[in-house]
Amino acid sequence: MAKKVELKKRQILDKIKSIGLDICKQIDNGRFPLIEIPSRSSANIVYDEAIRQYVLGPKRIRRYSKNVRHVRKFSQLVWLGYFIKQLMLSNKSSTLRDVYYSAEAYGIYFKSQQESNEIIADMEALLDTAREEFHIFPEERSAIFGELLVEYTCPGYEGKRVWLDSHPSGIMIGPSLVSAEFVECNAERVIVIESGGMFDRFIEEQVHKRYKAILIHTGGQAPRSTRWLIRRLNKELSLPVYIFTDGDPWGMHIAMVIISGSAHAAHIKDLATPDAKWIGVWPDDIIKYKLPTDKMNDQDIKRLKELEKDVRYQTKFWQDKVKLFLKLRKKAEQQAFSRYGLTYVVDKYLPDKLSEIEG
Amino acid sequence: MAKKVELKKRQILDKIKSIGLDICKQIDNGRFPLIEIPSRSSANIVYDEAIRQYVLGPKRIRRYSKNVRHVRKFSQLVWLGYFIKQLMLSNKSSTLRDVYYSAEAYGIYFKSQQESNEIIADMEALLDTAREEFHIFPEERSAIFGELLVEYTCPGYEGKRVWLDSHPSGIMIGPSLVSAEFVECNAERVIVIESGGMFDRFIEEQVHKRYKAILIHTGGQAPRSTRWLIRRLNKELSLPVYIFTDGDPWGMHIAMVIISGSAHAAHIKDLATPDAKWIGVWPDDIIKYKLPTDKMNDQDIKRLKELEKDVRYQTKFWQDKVKLFLKLRKKAEQQAFSRYGLTYVVDKYLPDKLSEIEG
Repeated sequence: MAKKVELKKRQILDKIKSIGLDICKQIDNGRFPLIEIPSRSSANIVYDEAIRQYVLGPKRIRRYSKNVRHVRKFSQLVWLGYFIKQLMLSNKSSTLRDVYYSAEAYGIYFKSQQESNEIIADMEALLDTAREEFHIFPEERSAIFGELLVEYTCPGYEGKRVWLDSHPSGIMIGPSLVSAEFVECNAERVIVIESGGMFDRFIEEQVHKRYKAILIHTGGQAPRSTRWLIRRLNKELSLPVYIFTDGDPWGMHIAMVIISGSAHAAHIKDLATPDAKWIGVWPDDIIKYKLPTDKMNDQDIKRLKELEKDVRYQTKFWQDKVKLFLKLRKKAEQQAFSRYGLTYVVDKYLPDKLSEIEG
Repeated sequence: MAKKVELKKRQILDKIKSIGLDICKQIDNGRFPLIEIPSRSSANIVYDEAIRQYVLGPKRIRRYSKNVRHVRKFSQLVWLGYFIKQLMLSNKSSTLRDVYYSAEAYGIYFKSQQESNEIIADMEALLDTAREEFHIFPEERSAIFGELLVEYTCPGYEGKRVWLDSHPSGIMIGPSLVSAEFVECNAERVIVIESGGMFDRFIEEQVHKRYKAILIHTGGQAPRSTRWLIRRLNKELSLPVYIFTDGDPWGMHIAMVIISGSAHAAHIKDLATPDAKWIGVWPDDIIKYKLPTDKMNDQDIKRLKELEKDVRYQTKFWQDKVKLFLKLRKKAEQQAFSRYGLTYVVDKYLPDKLSEIEG
């Protein structure tokens, strides 16, 4: 099972090597070396209808060591290539923050983590690979729970198999889980949940058994590694994915980013799950279930008006939702269902929604 | 093993019952009922040198149903007693947010979650019990990893035993883990870590084996359930506890709250671990290890001046640390050690610190 991971690793290392060889060749030929990378500027970000997500266009930019304005970024990028190679060869992982600090030991300086993050994104575009695959992770966390047997591929745990329902408080989605292989699965769907409280409620009410679901807690906007795992569950295991968030523009957009990706990660293709469905809290639900609401503030309204024009929201379903929110000017949290008792959301709302959507 | 949990549950239910009976008796005697609860006002919070934490003084306040200004809080508190009883009898848990919403179904209204949180804190003072014991949890999360075998007591998992090192990304510290019993432990110490990135690093570098440590990730300021678990590891298993945070007033205070408790939770006695030790990043370490630093901002300095006067910081150790920070006016993150390579913090800093502290 770990072969796929080994193969991917080999491919990335080969790409890094060929970039390095190309630089050496340019120097051997008496030229200042340059590197060409796909442009991540907004002018080069396009929405691809066919695969239903943002992608980069054909524009490329140059980091040219002869140009004094490029030298800094050129050497940062080359150093990062070296750093990644060491990471992968030694089977270690690093956070974005670690990269920022690690450079100092090599006499390479980043003004801020913002600057090192940008170079890491350049490297993703250059290698056409998400940074998680070359072992660089963020600090944010999210969790998973369900009847899925995984086999770890990380050092010290190679070949170890564990069911993801073994701990009733859930398993962190960290580096080891992202690189794990799926071995066996008794679930028939994935339910992605915005808040930790609702995630605990679903586990306590045995949603994983009653609705044969793998439960994922995003903890607000889903970290990229979580989005990547959601896509894998959808693609590799053909599980339908349902996303349950607060009923406000922010919750709705948590769902959208899982479904269609973000402009910021347009250079990565394996993060979106175009067939995932947002199952609420819809503005319609606020009316239908007479939920306790809060009045929207100016920020909420401003955000809705932005989303109304957003290319990802141009279908009838999404336009209807945005317009109804704008009409109601009210928002409701997932936990608002508690007004009908703690288990109502699982006993009534969830089965109603699933039968409506699954038909 | 689950007997202890059952006993505690019985005790809480008995207390709730006796409060209810007392109210009934007052009504039977033709009087407007009143409830007396320990005052949580700052005037009644004292630092107890003997047990080295904040506690409540002898002052009590009354919620008197005859007084119109008290009626609201009186009925909220009585409703909460009813709600807790139902929660415990049905073996369910609730978030703070759920409590806020649940009240509506009973015609009890809270203006905001702030208001319901206050009533829950009153109930803790009244029952002399942390809300986690009557099944009310926050949304924040933190994680644990290590060679500790636990036995769950939560519904659906009663009697199930799992080693907490079975998932290399860590286990969430949620309701189920907080109520679990400790069965077997191969660890000799607990290391509490502020950031998720450092927690992953420690797992990856096998700190749990190399230093026989249970690792806990607080995710910033430790949630109360995490502080409670830390105390249990210290008291029930006699494990020394070491806290590793960023080198700034905020990190230092994360350690202090674990060690000496917070004024906000002065009415709960089982959250502090007075024998826990802060192992860095000390201001001394910034000099000794020549760490990359940031300049302190006005907020950092202001916070240090507050801590300098704080009753919990009046020993030589803490005064020295605060004064050295004020002199340096610099701060460093845990991950700053990456400047010497990713594993330096585990290979060099940690063993140096442990041998310095354990003698």
